[in-house]
Amino acid sequence: MSIKISDDYLYGFIEGEGCFYVGIVPSQDTKNGFQVIPFFKVSQNPKGKVILDFLKKRLDCGYVKPNDKKNSSDKSLAYVVRDIISLKEKVIPFFEEKLFIKREEFLKFKKIIDLMSDKKHLTAQRFREIIDIAYTMNTGNRKIPKEQLIEHIK
Amino acid sequence: MSIKISDDYLYGFIEGEGCFYVGIVPSQDTKNGFQVIPFFKVSQNPKGKVILDFLKKRLDCGYVKPNDKKNSSDKSLAYVVRDIISLKEKVIPFFEEKLFIKREEFLKFKKIIDLMSDKKHLTAQRFREIIDIAYTMNTGNRKIPKEQLIEHIK
Repeated sequence: MSIKISDDYLYGFIEGEGCFYVGIVPSQDTKNGFQVIPFFKVSQNPKGKVILDFLKKRLDCGYVKPNDKKNSSDKSLAYVVRDIISLKEKVIPFFEEKLFIKREEFLKFKKIIDLMSDKKHLTAQRFREIIDIAYTMNTGNRKIPKEQLIEHIK
Repeated sequence: MSIKISDDYLYGFIEGEGCFYVGIVPSQDTKNGFQVIPFFKVSQNPKGKVILDFLKKRLDCGYVKPNDKKNSSDKSLAYVVRDIISLKEKVIPFFEEKLFIKREEFLKFKKIIDLMSDKKHLTAQRFREIIDIAYTMNTGNRKIPKEQLIEHIK
């Protein structure tokens, strides 16, 4: 099915369905033992695939995949952008100044991408700054308590 | 906060967040003992209030109210249109031909509104037709099994 939808439609859709998230997960590849993983994600049941595919085409990055299953009958899909160059050069400019409900979440996300994109080494201080911002976003989803994370990177 | 958002934004927003629903509930006011209650509803956490208020203004009908609470800390809101004239003359024309993901749900909703708006008496046969359509929509939310309902209206 070939559809043509406007950017405004996508902004409205993302206000409800999109998520700008910054995961902080254990990693053996980094000095402080944690890795910062920012991503933009839109989850949908299979009926919404047409919009996910359209988003991928319009933003010219990312991929559509089966969503992380909540249960065995979960057939939902997700459009995901994880690579930081695409986030910085495609996703962020597309949504800049366009969101109302997710404006605050978007601005925090953008700030973290800026902090991560800076060529300088990701110092403990900058990492701490990222944590401080990230832990005010999507607060229900955090597996590692902030205090525990900060203890590690001292 | 005064905002200006486009109709396209609203279409995209409703694709994700809107619900066209037809409740069928016990009632002492009808002959067959049940009442058909169609409504259009958009739920949001308090951050989304600005969009709910805007929708109300744009569609020129309905109301914004505290959502039916899932728990005591639930502060979410809902924009609701329940009166059938507003649904028929304002909500349906606004979304006609504009939705992709919710297209099927919308068309079923429209069909039911048409069946209900017909001036003729809501016969058992027409009521049965409404049930048949309604029970293919938002199937997770039905409290009364279809068989039980049909048994009553025979």
